[in-house]
Amino acid sequence: MKQNIETETAAGRPVAPPPSLSTLPEWAHFEQAARAARIDPSRLCVINAAGINLDTSGQHASEALQEAAADLLAARNFNAAREQLLSGGVVNPTENRAAWHTALRAPATVPEVAAERQRLIEFIHTADSERRWRNIVHIGIGGSDWGVRLAVAAFGYAGTWRRVHFVANIDGHAIQGGLSGFDPHDTLVVMASKSFTTAETLENGRRALEWLQAAGVADPYKQMIAITARPEAAREWGIPDAHIFKIWDWVGGRFSLWSAVSLTTALAVSADVIAGMQAGAAAMDKHFAEAPIAENAPVQMALSGIVNRSVLGYGSLNIAPYDFRLANLVPYIQQLEMESLGKSVDIAGDRVSVPTGPAVWGMPGTDAQHTFFQWLHQGSDGAPVDFIVCAQADHGWPHHHRILMAHCLAQRQALLRGKSYDEALQECLADGMPLERAQWLARHRLHGGGRPSNLIILQRLSPYTLGALLALYEHKVFVQGLVWGINPFDQWGVEYGKVLAKGLTRMLESCDPVDPGYDASTAYWVERLRGPCTGT
Amino acid sequence: MKQNIETETAAGRPVAPPPSLSTLPEWAHFEQAARAARIDPSRLCVINAAGINLDTSGQHASEALQEAAADLLAARNFNAAREQLLSGGVVNPTENRAAWHTALRAPATVPEVAAERQRLIEFIHTADSERRWRNIVHIGIGGSDWGVRLAVAAFGYAGTWRRVHFVANIDGHAIQGGLSGFDPHDTLVVMASKSFTTAETLENGRRALEWLQAAGVADPYKQMIAITARPEAAREWGIPDAHIFKIWDWVGGRFSLWSAVSLTTALAVSADVIAGMQAGAAAMDKHFAEAPIAENAPVQMALSGIVNRSVLGYGSLNIAPYDFRLANLVPYIQQLEMESLGKSVDIAGDRVSVPTGPAVWGMPGTDAQHTFFQWLHQGSDGAPVDFIVCAQADHGWPHHHRILMAHCLAQRQALLRGKSYDEALQECLADGMPLERAQWLARHRLHGGGRPSNLIILQRLSPYTLGALLALYEHKVFVQGLVWGINPFDQWGVEYGKVLAKGLTRMLESCDPVDPGYDASTAYWVERLRGPCTGT
Repeated sequence: MKQNIETETAAGRPVAPPPSLSTLPEWAHFEQAARAARIDPSRLCVINAAGINLDTSGQHASEALQEAAADLLAARNFNAAREQLLSGGVVNPTENRAAWHTALRAPATVPEVAAERQRLIEFIHTADSERRWRNIVHIGIGGSDWGVRLAVAAFGYAGTWRRVHFVANIDGHAIQGGLSGFDPHDTLVVMASKSFTTAETLENGRRALEWLQAAGVADPYKQMIAITARPEAAREWGIPDAHIFKIWDWVGGRFSLWSAVSLTTALAVSADVIAGMQAGAAAMDKHFAEAPIAENAPVQMALSGIVNRSVLGYGSLNIAPYDFRLANLVPYIQQLEMESLGKSVDIAGDRVSVPTGPAVWGMPGTDAQHTFFQWLHQGSDGAPVDFIVCAQADHGWPHHHRILMAHCLAQRQALLRGKSYDEALQECLADGMPLERAQWLARHRLHGGGRPSNLIILQRLSPYTLGALLALYEHKVFVQGLVWGINPFDQWGVEYGKVLAKGLTRMLESCDPVDPGYDASTAYWVERLRGPCTGT
Repeated sequence: MKQNIETETAAGRPVAPPPSLSTLPEWAHFEQAARAARIDPSRLCVINAAGINLDTSGQHASEALQEAAADLLAARNFNAAREQLLSGGVVNPTENRAAWHTALRAPATVPEVAAERQRLIEFIHTADSERRWRNIVHIGIGGSDWGVRLAVAAFGYAGTWRRVHFVANIDGHAIQGGLSGFDPHDTLVVMASKSFTTAETLENGRRALEWLQAAGVADPYKQMIAITARPEAAREWGIPDAHIFKIWDWVGGRFSLWSAVSLTTALAVSADVIAGMQAGAAAMDKHFAEAPIAENAPVQMALSGIVNRSVLGYGSLNIAPYDFRLANLVPYIQQLEMESLGKSVDIAGDRVSVPTGPAVWGMPGTDAQHTFFQWLHQGSDGAPVDFIVCAQADHGWPHHHRILMAHCLAQRQALLRGKSYDEALQECLADGMPLERAQWLARHRLHGGGRPSNLIILQRLSPYTLGALLALYEHKVFVQGLVWGINPFDQWGVEYGKVLAKGLTRMLESCDPVDPGYDASTAYWVERLRGPCTGT
């Protein structure tokens, strides 16, 4: 794997970190152009990428903005950075490593990846031909959980031959629910942890092992799988070599869907699904690598996102998949975006002068329309929305699908065009209201409009299009990180809570005096919640 | 039911709507006091309400703020408004009706509610004693969906004797998945729609009916239930009288959990669950009605929320239940808060001068820690967090529960105290880093701190405590609506998209020329997505 030695000293600190965004004249131009740009209802802008249509017509746009964007990307050495990402260079300077998840899905990849892929396929083939493992307990958390859940729900939404339970949370009710109803003699337990130190995964794995043992399973370790970058730790834990699949140090947890973590996906909804997803993602990688900036889907999505977040000030991004099968797309993208871009310090260590990554939230439509679209239409802030819908359905009721598509287009239209006071007044009068009430109620019925959105249309929900969709968001996030000057591949913010939790666990398990450094409320609850000492 | 005739003219417009917030001197005082208030780590503030502990120690507070808050509530006639809510007065002026969901859970309620409650219990008792309906398909959307899903997941997380599928979305994959794997001869279909005009529910109900018919069920309507405020519409649809349960005009969709919509809850996890939830909610109603302002849990939560949103400018609110069983609490509260408070116009019809209801989002911890807590700790904006945890677990692994509680307390502590540059530097040096790298990396590892939160502790997750928790949020939302001067009980913003969707459905189903008033992108996709005309 290539290492980019030029950006690293022996001390592991970049010699020349990228300049802060606020010092770039190209940023000032971009910001100025973004402020002047408008959403033009007569403009049509659709980019086709790896079988996906990205329609950005609902975003603020202008020629000046496109030019400023190209200059800004050039100032950030976009071409070199993209090349570094895709070739396995060091793009994660604070952890001094690559983020080479694209290698996991490349058709012609490095030999060790290809070899591990082959081992996985053989394992699946054997299990399928022997019709083994009627039940799967998949134990992983965060990146090792959401990607698999997403794929299994997307393609197994009407039931699967193997039943799959997902266990992530340290909350004991999770593993209790995960084991319940399964026959231990026909259950495979899959543990996915890159470091093989994730507390949740090891504790839950231990409970699953005890459950197998209690049921008298002869060799319970033979019913367990480990997927990890530290095979020696899994071996020590008891997992046999043939049941350990390797991931690499350069695979971030939030990209582990592309690794052997997809074993559960394959067992639940077939190995074809992982092959198809990899092919779709690889096609999007190719598009990202080759398409010119103005026709590059991830780049254009990234730029609109920066306009919405850093110039127009929208604090959040709503994901609205108009597809029941894509419910888990929301937490998947939440993790991808918020863990990657939830940082306000740039690579040099300086505070970024503009707001960075938004809060990401959402729900499938039409459920979302009955849950929070009120807020999107008439709330104080609103949020840009990514609408996602398939042109073709996989069920037999075309009428349902037309209504679904109509709702998707309608919500987007309503957010864009709004409803004026006069329109609302006419509507109230047409309902037969007295003038005075109509004038009053019209003020409750108007919509501001002018709220930006993307429309993403997949021809059908296939493994290929889902893979391409995920890669679209991944590369979008990479470009946003590059422009803001932050490192999207680390996550220092999650370490601190873990350290504090260790201390608090010790406190809850002991009768020692509470740490005098604790705030009053934490101290109070430690006393109240620890069992035996206080006799509660 | 009482009608408050003083606030209504014949034309249905309030004679004297509440004054706009910006005109109240009490608001100016509150705002000023809120800006001066600080989070004091040595302060401990815990309110006990209906068996729930609400700890607000992590919020900005001061004596001046408490005094200003009391004045502000007095200026909004809080006592009278609360009395009106709880006694069934008109608190929804734009729709000219009450929002009397508290009557549904009152131990001694109005006769017609008591009679319907009794009918429901008898139906459940018969079904249980005959061991009928092994499968339930619950069809409802928004409020008629999330409340039931929440209760069933909370108490049926380790499996239920009856299997329940929820169908909400108009997406045909939803009903396809909902019917799959069920035996039509032992399936009860429950349709919940207040108006009995909800397109999703009627279409999905029709598909379920066809499925029963296709399987040769002798009298398919006898396997269907309707819960509605328009029994005549359900009767016309074909449902027999004995299978129609009534809700009332004064029950908003987002409160329908307290009505006969809970039939599915009872069939899945027992009628005791609905009785328990009602008792807990009624206890919280009593607390809300009687507790003085400084010790009133919903009121204090509302005030902190207003400080965070309207004074400190936080755009969103994160809900973090540290309980695997409460995953559906997030969409439930999302609907409750965002549909209620996603408005920027006050009752008089004027724009509210400060930001109103925040975006609400979240996920159970510890999953959330591996998904987006990075953003909460180190992102540009952050968000206030409501941490929710139980003191006691209902499983047999106390170690898991202590770790869970420790994580909950630790995340809250990390958000509050933060980590300074010096602390981060010492940490890096202790890890053995060279000074230059340590100085650089410390800037990536620091946490701002000072981020507000609530801690809500339930003794155990019981129907009683869950009911009380939901009522806590309901009344919080009511108080926030009152202070902002908005009507939390209407939802005009969701009507517009429905109207546009009707037009678009017609367009997609016809070959007519596209409406010239459409924007270019909508017009393009109508042409592309409608089937036969373009031959695709």
